[in-house]
Amino acid sequence: MMRNIALKLMYVGTAYHGWQRQKNAMTVQEMLETCVAKVVKHPVRFTGAGRTDAGVHAEVYIANFRTSCNIPCDRMPLAFNARLPGDIVVLAARQVSEEFNAIGSCLRKEYTYRVYNSRIRNAFYVDRAYFYPKRLDEDFLQDAANRFVGTHDFSAVRDVGTPTRTNVRTISYFTVSRSGELIELRVCADGFLYNQVRCMVGTILYAAEGKFRPEDIDGILARKNRTEAGPTAPPEGLYMTKLWYREPVGLETDPIDSGLEYAALD
Amino acid sequence: MMRNIALKLMYVGTAYHGWQRQKNAMTVQEMLETCVAKVVKHPVRFTGAGRTDAGVHAEVYIANFRTSCNIPCDRMPLAFNARLPGDIVVLAARQVSEEFNAIGSCLRKEYTYRVYNSRIRNAFYVDRAYFYPKRLDEDFLQDAANRFVGTHDFSAVRDVGTPTRTNVRTISYFTVSRSGELIELRVCADGFLYNQVRCMVGTILYAAEGKFRPEDIDGILARKNRTEAGPTAPPEGLYMTKLWYREPVGLETDPIDSGLEYAALD
Repeated sequence: MMRNIALKLMYVGTAYHGWQRQKNAMTVQEMLETCVAKVVKHPVRFTGAGRTDAGVHAEVYIANFRTSCNIPCDRMPLAFNARLPGDIVVLAARQVSEEFNAIGSCLRKEYTYRVYNSRIRNAFYVDRAYFYPKRLDEDFLQDAANRFVGTHDFSAVRDVGTPTRTNVRTISYFTVSRSGELIELRVCADGFLYNQVRCMVGTILYAAEGKFRPEDIDGILARKNRTEAGPTAPPEGLYMTKLWYREPVGLETDPIDSGLEYAALD
Repeated sequence: MMRNIALKLMYVGTAYHGWQRQKNAMTVQEMLETCVAKVVKHPVRFTGAGRTDAGVHAEVYIANFRTSCNIPCDRMPLAFNARLPGDIVVLAARQVSEEFNAIGSCLRKEYTYRVYNSRIRNAFYVDRAYFYPKRLDEDFLQDAANRFVGTHDFSAVRDVGTPTRTNVRTISYFTVSRSGELIELRVCADGFLYNQVRCMVGTILYAAEGKFRPEDIDGILARKNRTEAGPTAPPEGLYMTKLWYREPVGLETDPIDSGLEYAALD
């Protein structure tokens, strides 16, 4: 019997050319498929929750695959981790319905963008946060971030990638917080366009540099012209941090150890 | 005029074979000397606060060198960091007295050993903490750590290295704390023998595994027999975190930005 298995993963993206398989570069998907195949003893193909780019990290990532092996789900993390390199970790595994698809079934995602904001860089944040030496005011950043919240056409803040049916998305929150020298921008939406989070962060930082006012972001979105917005912020600050699925998979009681986040959406 | 300059450094030790220059491997000292020489335009030789091993990190490290250049100290961090790789950072620079020597003038050091204590490893702590999957009780670890506090001959908990005049040292504190899955052991002494912190941590963890009781550590120290103690804990969990010097260097008002920690010892 073929089971559909969802894995909850964590990875440091520095060494990989993003999630998705590529011809001439190692990706998280290829590493995972190669290592898991050795354990389950048949070729596997993973579907991931999103195409994270080179250098982007995941504190939480969901991917599903089908297998004929009979390894119990609670044994899978240790079995797979024994084969995987240290920068990719399987946190949990659960059998899910035949219809479950890590990207298609995903209702909402949260990304966190981390900025190390200090005059002098921190060796421990290299490749893990965007080093930004000019002092940033988090209240100003929050004002700018608020302009993106709600349902908008986000054509002005995405880079050219796979064509999408519509560029309208709904951002449910976009919060800015500071802890010492680390600034975190957390943004949640029903989906994101290619590089959308990095373009929005780059636009917020552009406003912080005085290139335009927070309220100008309304017009930038309305005119749908990518060249009016700020540059794409670098990948090393970006983390996938939360995912929501309608299918509870019996996991909603313990989201930390659960393998899947679950939220009953309206 | 030759100035004696003390640098406050931070480094991630993963890519280096420790602090001290070696023939066939890149070390922090060599990287620093090579990069600083290009800026000051003459060869330089650094004296470091201690010989950290391969894979060991420093949140704070002090090293001094002599230079005939006339670069103001407050310009040195940016000038040196522009040449250094991202995993070594100069945080501050100060002119110190002719007699100042980063190792000889050092009165006390604090090392922190970090253990990632969770059933499943964390990709973000690879090379940055010792992954220890069996659940550890921090009160038990503290009981064992307390046995090392005070003035003792520490021959039982050091590896063979450069001969020392005496193996007697004084540990002023050895505290254990947990924050989520991260356990920190902070130990301060007037000096440490080769691998002493890693041997003590390995011995504490050995006790936690039931190999002996915390109170047995008294006898292990008294018999001065290395083979009775626990194994040497791996390097990736070890960080140099604080240094104390008698020379205030005018910096004691602002220890964070100061370049040097200062404590008036009795």
